[in-house]
Amino acid sequence: MAENEPVPAGRLTIAYELSCGPGQDPRSMAEDLALEQTVELPVGCVPDAIAGAVVGRVEEVVDVGGGRARAVVSYDPALVGNVAGQLLNLLFGNVSLKVGVRVAGIEWPEALLAEFPGPRFGIEGLRELAGVAGRPLLCVAVKPVGLAAAELAERCRRFAIAGVDLVKDDHSLAGQEWAPFAERVARCHEAVEEANRESAGHTLYLPHLFGGPNGLARRARRLRALGIRGALVSPMLLGWDAVRWLAETSGVAILGHPSLTGSLFAPDHGIAPEALLGQVFRVLGCDGVIYPNAGGRFPFPLAACEAINRELRKPLGTLRPAFPVPGGGIDAARIPEWVGRYGPDTIFLVGSNLYSRPDPYAAAKGVVEVLRGWS
Amino acid sequence: MAENEPVPAGRLTIAYELSCGPGQDPRSMAEDLALEQTVELPVGCVPDAIAGAVVGRVEEVVDVGGGRARAVVSYDPALVGNVAGQLLNLLFGNVSLKVGVRVAGIEWPEALLAEFPGPRFGIEGLRELAGVAGRPLLCVAVKPVGLAAAELAERCRRFAIAGVDLVKDDHSLAGQEWAPFAERVARCHEAVEEANRESAGHTLYLPHLFGGPNGLARRARRLRALGIRGALVSPMLLGWDAVRWLAETSGVAILGHPSLTGSLFAPDHGIAPEALLGQVFRVLGCDGVIYPNAGGRFPFPLAACEAINRELRKPLGTLRPAFPVPGGGIDAARIPEWVGRYGPDTIFLVGSNLYSRPDPYAAAKGVVEVLRGWS
Repeated sequence: MAENEPVPAGRLTIAYELSCGPGQDPRSMAEDLALEQTVELPVGCVPDAIAGAVVGRVEEVVDVGGGRARAVVSYDPALVGNVAGQLLNLLFGNVSLKVGVRVAGIEWPEALLAEFPGPRFGIEGLRELAGVAGRPLLCVAVKPVGLAAAELAERCRRFAIAGVDLVKDDHSLAGQEWAPFAERVARCHEAVEEANRESAGHTLYLPHLFGGPNGLARRARRLRALGIRGALVSPMLLGWDAVRWLAETSGVAILGHPSLTGSLFAPDHGIAPEALLGQVFRVLGCDGVIYPNAGGRFPFPLAACEAINRELRKPLGTLRPAFPVPGGGIDAARIPEWVGRYGPDTIFLVGSNLYSRPDPYAAAKGVVEVLRGWS
Repeated sequence: MAENEPVPAGRLTIAYELSCGPGQDPRSMAEDLALEQTVELPVGCVPDAIAGAVVGRVEEVVDVGGGRARAVVSYDPALVGNVAGQLLNLLFGNVSLKVGVRVAGIEWPEALLAEFPGPRFGIEGLRELAGVAGRPLLCVAVKPVGLAAAELAERCRRFAIAGVDLVKDDHSLAGQEWAPFAERVARCHEAVEEANRESAGHTLYLPHLFGGPNGLARRARRLRALGIRGALVSPMLLGWDAVRWLAETSGVAILGHPSLTGSLFAPDHGIAPEALLGQVFRVLGCDGVIYPNAGGRFPFPLAACEAINRELRKPLGTLRPAFPVPGGGIDAARIPEWVGRYGPDTIFLVGSNLYSRPDPYAAAKGVVEVLRGWS
């Protein structure tokens, strides 16, 4: 949403980009959308008392030419009712099943933000956990799925000795038979702690959390029992309210992974990456958010990366800022260039590029030295 | 997947449609995909012991012309590790962030199906709960959000008196202040029970379940305590493993709603609707699956509707068949036509069209009479 636009006080205000087919009027599309996302009824069947308060309100419709329009619709935040899933439902639930509707921006009323946890640690808190002030951080993914727990732990140990700030599970690691969760997490954490003692380091190990209500709660308790301080979650795999619950109750820092989000990032239908990854993930409690960096394995535009960075770090109610975590095929040799572009409040996630080197651990150490030399 | 193709025994086998950009070779795309969805490493960095067992195996690549190809990749089902989220991750997690990849079909090994609950009731079980043999069923949505619990309950009562088989919450109803969950569910259920006593009917009330681990478990217990026999869930809002957990533990019939799934249904990127709604939703435990019917408010093609119907009802391991639940703007006047096309093992979900009539309850009764007359 443009900075200079008036935002209705106290309303959740969403800017949509609409693609209008032949004969489609953008104002009618916006009005349909405001009904579809709330009462799911034609306007004539909505009780009067509800029509004014509950139905989305079309604030503005601007035809931008080329069959496209920009519509701003505001909603009573009481519709969310303190449920993360309902926030997503209000943003794009039924409308996902239409075509040519894109959530381009979200303005959050303070009262709605106050219902959600936001990052428990945020940039400053995660820096304290990792013992890193002022410079960008390095995160390495421990992989691949299929290795035994002891083999994964040895990789963790060597990356920790190399001085990597965060060692996280690949999000494909769950409870598979090759390395069952309890054994894997205990071994990997112990290996990192051992390396920290050996090298006086502060590397954090972040296991991947997954599963249904009971399993997730059990795994979160295990993390606490082991003294683990962070975890990786994939909101689209785990569930929006489960992420929020972890942020509120687990006591660990949360790194959000974008698995399964990609179909939402189509140019003319979905949710803008900076709105979903930069805002929603942060509001639900992610202290860092992974996204596929431009120039990597995924076709993600630089402008989207920069917009995500901006949204994660900007003032937003009383929420703490969160770390952008560009990944998805970063070339370690280009880290200095990315640091120059993204600045120090960034965690660089490097995985496959390090594993492709003759000595991944020496290569990781080289990146750490570059980042430590940053100023 | 075509019926006559050999499927590798015991492997989870996925048929992808690939859109190849200029200079893109479909076989390389398929091989990248098989790596991306498992080890997330270039082929040269995968330990030998894992390369054979864990990396996806490209079974077939067929160039179908026009820059499109069909690729079949098989996976060791142990990758799923009995976690629903990991099933989705394996199907389309990281690949969602690429472009031009569509999951067109899934072949399930028996051992993988056996890990998941599938429908607890299925078509026959839900028929028994609703006391309806041999004919199609009518489901009506109680709405809109914004009404008080007593007003929603009165709508439930009147639809039950009209003989509607299932009365379900709109999926926008959660725990909002206008009608808090506990009060709303108790009143709506009691209203339906009262109507059932009055008219010797068997109408079922299905409240919408939502929330994080603790809240969901608490709400499921409340349903049991009240004697409620079914619930509505939105898997993309609630979380895949939460749905599976409800199917396994709650004892209620599960109706799955497609909120937020729509961006996955793009023609050249995503998951085919019949694979997601027709297979995945069923495997995770939905007894009925709602989808937007052709000719309604959503641009859903008839072929997709028919494919979903087929997948929900077809033999699949030892899983019970599930009800297709076409909705999203069905015109009550066209029900006879849809019954002729879809057959008796269908639940018709009608909402806004009934509310648009001068007397929604009389209109609902009319539909019930049509369905009762079906033979």
